[in-house]
Amino acid sequence: MAILSGLSIVECAAFIAGPFATGALARLGADIIRIDPIEGGIDQHRWPVTAAGRSLYWAGLNKGKKSVRIDIRRPEGRELAQALITAPGEGRGLFITNFPAVGWLDYDALCRRRADLVMVNILGNRDGSTALDYTVNCAVGFPLATGPLGDDRPVNHVLPAWDFICGQTAATALLAAERFRRLHGRGQRLRIALSDVALAVVADMGLLAEVEINGAERERHGNHIYGAFGCDFATSDGRRLMVAAVSTGQWQALVRATGQEGPLSALASARGLDLSREGDRHGARDAIAALLAPWFAARTLSDAGRALDAARACWGPYQRFEQLLAEDPRCSPANPLFARVDHPGIGTMLTAGSPIDCSACPPVPPAAGPVPGQDTDAVLADLLGLGTAQLAGLHDRGIIAGPAA
Amino acid sequence: MAILSGLSIVECAAFIAGPFATGALARLGADIIRIDPIEGGIDQHRWPVTAAGRSLYWAGLNKGKKSVRIDIRRPEGRELAQALITAPGEGRGLFITNFPAVGWLDYDALCRRRADLVMVNILGNRDGSTALDYTVNCAVGFPLATGPLGDDRPVNHVLPAWDFICGQTAATALLAAERFRRLHGRGQRLRIALSDVALAVVADMGLLAEVEINGAERERHGNHIYGAFGCDFATSDGRRLMVAAVSTGQWQALVRATGQEGPLSALASARGLDLSREGDRHGARDAIAALLAPWFAARTLSDAGRALDAARACWGPYQRFEQLLAEDPRCSPANPLFARVDHPGIGTMLTAGSPIDCSACPPVPPAAGPVPGQDTDAVLADLLGLGTAQLAGLHDRGIIAGPAA
Repeated sequence: MAILSGLSIVECAAFIAGPFATGALARLGADIIRIDPIEGGIDQHRWPVTAAGRSLYWAGLNKGKKSVRIDIRRPEGRELAQALITAPGEGRGLFITNFPAVGWLDYDALCRRRADLVMVNILGNRDGSTALDYTVNCAVGFPLATGPLGDDRPVNHVLPAWDFICGQTAATALLAAERFRRLHGRGQRLRIALSDVALAVVADMGLLAEVEINGAERERHGNHIYGAFGCDFATSDGRRLMVAAVSTGQWQALVRATGQEGPLSALASARGLDLSREGDRHGARDAIAALLAPWFAARTLSDAGRALDAARACWGPYQRFEQLLAEDPRCSPANPLFARVDHPGIGTMLTAGSPIDCSACPPVPPAAGPVPGQDTDAVLADLLGLGTAQLAGLHDRGIIAGPAA
Repeated sequence: MAILSGLSIVECAAFIAGPFATGALARLGADIIRIDPIEGGIDQHRWPVTAAGRSLYWAGLNKGKKSVRIDIRRPEGRELAQALITAPGEGRGLFITNFPAVGWLDYDALCRRRADLVMVNILGNRDGSTALDYTVNCAVGFPLATGPLGDDRPVNHVLPAWDFICGQTAATALLAAERFRRLHGRGQRLRIALSDVALAVVADMGLLAEVEINGAERERHGNHIYGAFGCDFATSDGRRLMVAAVSTGQWQALVRATGQEGPLSALASARGLDLSREGDRHGARDAIAALLAPWFAARTLSDAGRALDAARACWGPYQRFEQLLAEDPRCSPANPLFARVDHPGIGTMLTAGSPIDCSACPPVPPAAGPVPGQDTDAVLADLLGLGTAQLAGLHDRGIIAGPAA
């Protein structure tokens, strides 16, 4: 039995944070029911798309879920969607959305149908105004602290990190509220603003404290790890790798691997530094990097990696996405995280399950995303007890639809 | 009553993913007990630090937790730590660590003390080898896809995003396993590799599919949002802002705000594009940006922002951390996320609570991090029933310690 077996969660969501939240729960065995508008959701064609226009993004973020197509522009469709969200039964009445919770998604209106509803609502800002990952990220400081020293243009991240942290936070919130409901009998609404998720992380990392307590501001450090030693080096075969010496053990391993004990001791003596201290390593980062660079420049990526591994140093190769697929055994079916799965209309591709490996529960096999509407009749029959005649009537009136042709 | 009231979780952890996992649960009202080595943990001096050497990083990531100092180098100390991890009682026997689960942290050994233990173990790689955020990030493709088009040096992220996603995943895992134990009576070990967390996200975003299905590789797009329209603009007062037009509504709002309907229509006609389609906007991103740039360049950040808000466009200012604190009301006590909290030995600073706002449960007030060892006697008395004489003996033998002077 999967670890979240028995949970049935309804989702009205688009883009990343909402779909990723339920996706994380689906990969642990929760039953996830997407309500998809008949005309297609706002992110149904989000890039990257295949030559035939199918969204690889949508397929990835919605894999392993069910999809019900409902015309939510009409009252009868909205009524049906509300009935699904508030369907009776244990393990139901759980709802995640990153749409504005107004109109037919109003929490109080939904609670009138099921008083113990758990509703997780992801917002842009706490006041309900819009914000996306990219418009939050620019505001919380990182783009102006990223990239080469001396440059002053902001550098946007490509990974929408706040969306993913926010989505995983929403998954945590749902389980916390389901536990509370089980113990105390009460449901609730949980609101999570994307900008609050980012601000909490900035505070946790000490970046606000650095300004408030130290009167300092984090400067750009290029590819150096702040407050320790770590940076990228070029190898003789035109590749590049990252080494990290955050702990004393990692530092000693790096020194051992590269055989630079002598020059590094001389550097430390000349400057009065103790390089076993992370702060001293950080202060001398450019000199250390200059001492180590020739060692890397004289070796291929593969040879340098073998020597670093032998010394138990911490490092990683830089890889483009293509190289990640071609070269890294972690990114292949050899890793139990992955399986090659056929996605209807798209093709067979490496598909991830949950990164959580549970010793007492079998893993949920990686699955394809749904064809929108593929589960319409089955879900309405199961959750709401609709019979053949009722379903036929809803189809006739265009309130619901099966899979698009 | 807080939403996670009644949960008591023991933590042996350092750096980010482990402490952030328990921190997220602490902010929802779980009782978190850190076991800190008497001589100080590996991250106790991680930068940024105050002038007096106190780590603002450690304080931020461990706020609202309890700390017990134990000499875990000696068998008697390890025995005591194991007893805490496996203490009897409902809501106990919950353990999170990002240390190697060997020796006294071996899962089977711990299970012999409490058969239904839930243990979340964060790893670098699934095979147990070391990996840090920075050595994972280089491998999963983003640094070579980040930064200005035409540049080919990797750009490391400054936000250790994988650590935070992984930490939040660990919080989700703990609640999933606690639910399973409550329903089925069985504990388990949950292993989460940092590299698997990253690989799953890369797959979910369609970045592997882009290579496998489309035979393409994501190229650098500078500060442009991939697959839609969004980029940064300079304003007349030397500031910069980010606009995002991912949805049709956001695009129309941006066009309305900047009054560029005419030139943009002409551009669309000339190139045979439909700019209401996200892919067409992405293809014409440089031309669109060039048409819009003069509007921004003629206005201050504040004036441009007002016009964008009036049209309900989606945007955000670029802010350094100092500007975030000085200018953004979301990053102030006006936001219920925050409170100004006195951190002993550090000072008063803006401190974040949980970004999850629960309608049925009061928020847990933001709290300072512990002084290591401040809860040693109280926790050992509470969880293990040790009396005054036993505690005194442990202190005398140097097995435990109270707060460092």
